[in-house]
Amino acid sequence: MRQGPTPLAVSLGDPAGVGPELIAAAWARRNELALPAFFVVGGAGLLRAAAEARGLAAPIEQIGTPSHALEVFDRALPVLGDADVPYSPGQPSQEGGGLALSSLSHGAALARFGDAAGLVTMPIAKAELAKVGFASPGQTEFLAESCGVSPQGAVMMLAGPSLRAVPLTVHHAISDVPGLLSVELIVSKGRIVAEALRHDFGIDAPRLAVCGLNPHAGEQGRMGHEDAEIIAPAIAQLCADGIDATGPHPADALFSPRARATYDAALAMYHDQALIPVKALDFDQGVNVTLGLPIVRTSPDHGTAFDIAGKAIADEGATVAAVRMAGEIAERRSLAHF
Amino acid sequence: MRQGPTPLAVSLGDPAGVGPELIAAAWARRNELALPAFFVVGGAGLLRAAAEARGLAAPIEQIGTPSHALEVFDRALPVLGDADVPYSPGQPSQEGGGLALSSLSHGAALARFGDAAGLVTMPIAKAELAKVGFASPGQTEFLAESCGVSPQGAVMMLAGPSLRAVPLTVHHAISDVPGLLSVELIVSKGRIVAEALRHDFGIDAPRLAVCGLNPHAGEQGRMGHEDAEIIAPAIAQLCADGIDATGPHPADALFSPRARATYDAALAMYHDQALIPVKALDFDQGVNVTLGLPIVRTSPDHGTAFDIAGKAIADEGATVAAVRMAGEIAERRSLAHF
Repeated sequence: MRQGPTPLAVSLGDPAGVGPELIAAAWARRNELALPAFFVVGGAGLLRAAAEARGLAAPIEQIGTPSHALEVFDRALPVLGDADVPYSPGQPSQEGGGLALSSLSHGAALARFGDAAGLVTMPIAKAELAKVGFASPGQTEFLAESCGVSPQGAVMMLAGPSLRAVPLTVHHAISDVPGLLSVELIVSKGRIVAEALRHDFGIDAPRLAVCGLNPHAGEQGRMGHEDAEIIAPAIAQLCADGIDATGPHPADALFSPRARATYDAALAMYHDQALIPVKALDFDQGVNVTLGLPIVRTSPDHGTAFDIAGKAIADEGATVAAVRMAGEIAERRSLAHF
Repeated sequence: MRQGPTPLAVSLGDPAGVGPELIAAAWARRNELALPAFFVVGGAGLLRAAAEARGLAAPIEQIGTPSHALEVFDRALPVLGDADVPYSPGQPSQEGGGLALSSLSHGAALARFGDAAGLVTMPIAKAELAKVGFASPGQTEFLAESCGVSPQGAVMMLAGPSLRAVPLTVHHAISDVPGLLSVELIVSKGRIVAEALRHDFGIDAPRLAVCGLNPHAGEQGRMGHEDAEIIAPAIAQLCADGIDATGPHPADALFSPRARATYDAALAMYHDQALIPVKALDFDQGVNVTLGLPIVRTSPDHGTAFDIAGKAIADEGATVAAVRMAGEIAERRSLAHF
């Protein structure tokens, strides 16, 4: 078992997106925000150019081993390894996709073997990564596979200051969603969420609020049968397991300030049901955290934003929040080991 | 054509819900908030009891004609007619349902014939109204029928300080939504919304943002075909009509503060896609306004809340906002007539 503090790893994401400048911007606020130490996997020249374009005084220092980051972090942004590409914001390339993939896979391996306390992934462009052989639907699925966890076992949670929300189905057409819901799906993901809230977020008795699928949670079967036939029995099963789960709740009423005070995480039935309220309430502070993995993994909850990359206007709030949350989860997990 | 100011009518909603106390609470703030004059259709004894239970000094004065409300409004809450029931908060009854229905239909007739400048409807309980012969899915459909407008011609918009959103389909199971969407539906409702934003809201060149149905608006057909095959052609048709409509936008990104600054109303494909962001952002201030009717009609965007009725804790913010918005729309319409 490793001893003492370990830095976080940050993967670059697509080099032509906002990832590199946001990493540098987060580093520049390390003292003000008391951020945990991190290093970037690759892209030293790229990060230097991105920091300069953003007008940041962010010296870059290459490191030979992850632990070296702890010593460097205070004076410079530590970068591990030599992989690099020229900085061309807004212009994704196959070369850049290759760097994004190597940064992600190397970062995952470092986290898996304990050389990094966790992994913060910056946004990728799936189309670019597909050109270099990336076959997963997204980074979450790739990391699950890297860690030997089934795709069902890795659960995406969006967390902001106002709300934690979990979409139980993610990248599927709305017409496919009703057919994808099952008691088993809701129960298995609900258990992972409850477990993660306890161990990763330090909430002793987590309260889950489960959304209905249909308007007004179906209004006693008047609008759709899934709320009564699938979601309600799943909630009963979670309760029988000793998990504090309530619902199915009418989803439109579940995100008011009063309602949000009654639960620790909302389980949503589909992508937009979870992401609309998180992004409406916490747009520049939303963190995507993967529950159920042996490694700690967070990500800022936004895309590559090629249209504003290199223009010094992208907000580093979500990246800062992702770094901080990864540090907090890593600390809770390491304390639990002693 | 009528001359001079005309008061608004307010229908009671279910007498056992929060409607009566919220009407009295709104009246009590009439001077502080410079509310337009209104009268209530029925329920004098009920309103007196509800005001007392809430600890409000709100004298009730019965009036014989709507115009009498203008003179009374400053000193007392004007009530038209003798219909009444005893006040029993939280305990809906058939008798109460009967009063709710007569208040609604009488109020609609007064607005239809110009004796009221508009109608603010307090929340009803559909189950109670059904017992007294109410066959419509809701008040909006009932009012459309009362005004000789097709159900498709009356469009529900939710409006709060942060956001206006229109669900293009309303009370339907999610599994039915994809099949209900058509180019014609989106275009005809989009036209009604644009027209209403111009004439009722005073926005000369309204900007409509249209949500996609699927996550990421389908991502070029990778998740569902409706965004490309139905929604995009409908937007093109609206633009060809000279309406500033954009999309289909990924719905989860459309409700951030930055995105909200780029449009005047969002058109959502289903109930929760519109109501989740409105209620998350503007819970106690959301107004349900019906577009496309010859009468002005608004409503606070919440239900009867039987569980908290009579306990002096329901928030009158949405009722106040509904009264104010009805007054503003009525004023714009009356100015347009001269």
